[in-house]
Amino acid sequence: MSDDPAGATRNPADTQYLGPPTIWNAQVELMDEAECLRLIAGGGVGRIAYSGQYGLTVLPVSYKLLDGSIVVRTPLGSSTDEALRTGIRGADYRVTFEIDQVGHDAEEGWFVVIQGPAHHVDAHDDCLAAWVPGQRSSEGRSREHYVRITPSLIVGRRLRQSAGA
Amino acid sequence: MSDDPAGATRNPADTQYLGPPTIWNAQVELMDEAECLRLIAGGGVGRIAYSGQYGLTVLPVSYKLLDGSIVVRTPLGSSTDEALRTGIRGADYRVTFEIDQVGHDAEEGWFVVIQGPAHHVDAHDDCLAAWVPGQRSSEGRSREHYVRITPSLIVGRRLRQSAGA
Repeated sequence: MSDDPAGATRNPADTQYLGPPTIWNAQVELMDEAECLRLIAGGGVGRIAYSGQYGLTVLPVSYKLLDGSIVVRTPLGSSTDEALRTGIRGADYRVTFEIDQVGHDAEEGWFVVIQGPAHHVDAHDDCLAAWVPGQRSSEGRSREHYVRITPSLIVGRRLRQSAGA
Repeated sequence: MSDDPAGATRNPADTQYLGPPTIWNAQVELMDEAECLRLIAGGGVGRIAYSGQYGLTVLPVSYKLLDGSIVVRTPLGSSTDEALRTGIRGADYRVTFEIDQVGHDAEEGWFVVIQGPAHHVDAHDDCLAAWVPGQRSSEGRSREHYVRITPSLIVGRRLRQSAGA
């Protein structure tokens, strides 16, 4: 299946998921899940990717890490909202979430890629409480909603410039 | 068709591609293609997304804008290489490329999303000459290759914090 998070069930094939260490001409180190989660724990901006009405879409969104899940804020009525809402009825809607912090040449830094099903967050879900206090304003909140991505695969790489380059 | 770059043929539906201006609780302005291309002209790091062997994959890569195309450096033998190489035999392999520069809350800045077919770049393609001089080292270059993404859809948004927020 093309959308199978194969890396979660393959071992040691995780090393193949993102290619051998020649990638980006940088030295690439695998990071374990704990390291990935530590790096993204602070939240910030990631990119959510999904196959929707307009093909493969990638958008920057604000996220937080809550209880091991990625919680993303999306606007009600947007194509992201509609795509996820439609997809979730009756079945998991699988998305990919990416967070990175890399230099201009993508030869140093790190990135984390998460695959998993996306679910709408109920208005009474605890994660909302974690979001709202940090917001500058409550205006417009009623027009937003939150999506929780439960990781089925977490992979991460740390890039270092090759010695002598 | 789910992978149709619908925005290229719909008008004014481009405004729907990434949702209404409530997105991210920021004020969102559409950018035209010229503005998008101007913003990404300097190259840097973007994220290439494609459906491959391991599902929907999103990876940060170094890119340059050359003659209106995105040229991305990927490693030979990596899963990205294999996915694109396999896909390109006999048919276009469509990918999505995203570049952004947004603040921590994704409420200010801009992003550009490009969809289009990816093609391998021949070793004698002019775009290689544009890459190599800027590289710190030629070591390892033989293990890399370049992919050209010819945009069929370019959409961009500028985000501004809502007044009074």
